[in-house]
Amino acid sequence: MKSNNLLFIYSFFKNHTIFFHKKLAKHVNLCYNMCVIFESADKAPHQERQGSHPMKIRIGIFGYGNLGRGIENAIRQNPDMELVAVFTRRDPSTLTIGTPNVPVCHVSDVEKFTEKIDVMILCGGSATDLPTQTPALAKQFCVVDSFDTHAKIPAHFANVDAAAKAGGKVAMISVGWDPGMFSLNRLYASSILPDGKDYTFWGKGVSQGHSDAIRRIEGVVDAKQYTIPVEAALDAVRSGSCPTLTTREKHLRECFVVAAEGADKARIEKEIVEMPNYFADYDTTVHFISLEELKRDHAGIPHGGFVIRTGKTGADLEHNHVIEYSLKLDSNPEFTASVIVAYARAAHRLYTEGAVGCKTVFDVPPAYLSPKSYNELIGTLL
Amino acid sequence: MKSNNLLFIYSFFKNHTIFFHKKLAKHVNLCYNMCVIFESADKAPHQERQGSHPMKIRIGIFGYGNLGRGIENAIRQNPDMELVAVFTRRDPSTLTIGTPNVPVCHVSDVEKFTEKIDVMILCGGSATDLPTQTPALAKQFCVVDSFDTHAKIPAHFANVDAAAKAGGKVAMISVGWDPGMFSLNRLYASSILPDGKDYTFWGKGVSQGHSDAIRRIEGVVDAKQYTIPVEAALDAVRSGSCPTLTTREKHLRECFVVAAEGADKARIEKEIVEMPNYFADYDTTVHFISLEELKRDHAGIPHGGFVIRTGKTGADLEHNHVIEYSLKLDSNPEFTASVIVAYARAAHRLYTEGAVGCKTVFDVPPAYLSPKSYNELIGTLL
Repeated sequence: MKSNNLLFIYSFFKNHTIFFHKKLAKHVNLCYNMCVIFESADKAPHQERQGSHPMKIRIGIFGYGNLGRGIENAIRQNPDMELVAVFTRRDPSTLTIGTPNVPVCHVSDVEKFTEKIDVMILCGGSATDLPTQTPALAKQFCVVDSFDTHAKIPAHFANVDAAAKAGGKVAMISVGWDPGMFSLNRLYASSILPDGKDYTFWGKGVSQGHSDAIRRIEGVVDAKQYTIPVEAALDAVRSGSCPTLTTREKHLRECFVVAAEGADKARIEKEIVEMPNYFADYDTTVHFISLEELKRDHAGIPHGGFVIRTGKTGADLEHNHVIEYSLKLDSNPEFTASVIVAYARAAHRLYTEGAVGCKTVFDVPPAYLSPKSYNELIGTLL
Repeated sequence: MKSNNLLFIYSFFKNHTIFFHKKLAKHVNLCYNMCVIFESADKAPHQERQGSHPMKIRIGIFGYGNLGRGIENAIRQNPDMELVAVFTRRDPSTLTIGTPNVPVCHVSDVEKFTEKIDVMILCGGSATDLPTQTPALAKQFCVVDSFDTHAKIPAHFANVDAAAKAGGKVAMISVGWDPGMFSLNRLYASSILPDGKDYTFWGKGVSQGHSDAIRRIEGVVDAKQYTIPVEAALDAVRSGSCPTLTTREKHLRECFVVAAEGADKARIEKEIVEMPNYFADYDTTVHFISLEELKRDHAGIPHGGFVIRTGKTGADLEHNHVIEYSLKLDSNPEFTASVIVAYARAAHRLYTEGAVGCKTVFDVPPAYLSPKSYNELIGTLL
């Protein structure tokens, strides 16, 4: 009887949408989703699902590089989650992962897991992997990605949104620290202080793209590039003077380069510091070191940065305020993974509440990131 | 025809709630709210409402002290809002406000404004005003308050929630910077780095409560007390060593005191530094200055502070991370007001979407704080 009534309601809404005021369309959509949830109430899907821990959020990792390994480690730090499978484009038999008794599968087998995974975390790159992988997987899974090509986020959002809506899933994109936590801080600070200006500084940290660009120079064996915020620029921003800063004034670039034996170091250095887009607009320092030194002193992937907004309030805008958010990270991919895992929890909760479509960090009520109950949150953290 | 159908749906849901699975109760409630919205769609309430700027969010200020004046100034910085009225317990004719052509009304007239105000911002104190004012007004208005007695937030939440639900309104409590932005940062950081520890430092800033306590000492004409975080403690926290810090190790207290002529300064100083709860557990410095110096050098209400979380990630928790959020505020009440005004926007939006009940900063999707469109946000800030 219950199911029949719910089906009736569902079809009622479906057939009468056209009568609603246009502005109410999204409410109607939400109601649809709820009705879909109501319909399936008899089935109690969470009790029937497969896996050894029926109450845990079941995670899949799609791609097993630095980020994928970071996700695997982060899942171990969150007892409400479990890793169900790792998917790779490589031959799965060649891959050993850090978690016992978790299968490594070929990406072509992913469809077999649609009922076994609550959230698929995509660990591919933004250049070529995510633009196709996220929309493809969002039709079948709730997904989270870390798409970080800022200029292409609106287009990626549109593609993923269409796919997630077609599949009735939640797809969260561009999660990490920038985009991600830095974006959130830009949004919060600019909403609080409309008469102000915000600044983002990156570093000190390793830029993978700039390191790669150096490695492509003839005669370079290996290289690491650090992006370093200029202390004087940070101080000028914090003063509230709202300075206009050039690219060169904001960041330094420091390069540690291993040259091949007999290579022309002067030419290599010139090619680095004059490289358009990557280095020409910056003050760049080049250090030639041995491969041993590079491996010993520059093996890590640290990063971080600062989001600072200064703004004015008062009857005559006579009061100045500084909001600053900063990160100092020993491991860029592991921190990014930790942010993603918290948002995987939120994606799962949004989905169970009936949400569908593409979401970003801007859409997520902060409470949804925590495994703690709402009462515990307002009692201990508010 | 539309309205009839919607009423039917509404009553259908109402009558069949008991059949639903318990876990679905909140979805059903949400659907109720939506149905209420649907019902009123014919009326197009936003077109009919009173006021000169029908598309602006109409704000009322309840209480006109430092915070109320800050709200008034902040509204001027947000073109999507307008101030409709200021309510005071004083004789309204004795109060001049900073905004031309806005009425000052006695609090007893507030009921006349239920259709004219979208969000009432409560600017009373947490000790005696807000515990009664917020629940009382939440029955008739969407409200935002800055209730900041941390230990009593759960009880205040329960009272306000019941009132707001009875009135079908959204009531947002404990908005500001602590509770408020600091709470948010504690929540985000602890969700991202579960294996870690967070620390909150306050200052350098004026503590009103401690200044008042000094003023109550015999022979004291006036006083200002500054809370100052200990730099060495901040550094120890940032190092990731997760130190256990005593009250004395975290903050200093510096007092500027105007003594009455002939008063025993040694006794006053002793009474200050030995005062239980307020000063006894801190290293406290007392400076005696003239009334002129106090007025000249200590008239402002600066404040600020730091929320720092350090935490570990990695297969062997071998990587350390530092997340730091800090505020440096020229005017504590004006910054608090700026946060509240952004959350008033969010409260209004939640209400127009059908939400009811008590909310906190933990419930609000960050995008709801901004007047910008979602597309603009993901295109420019993400």
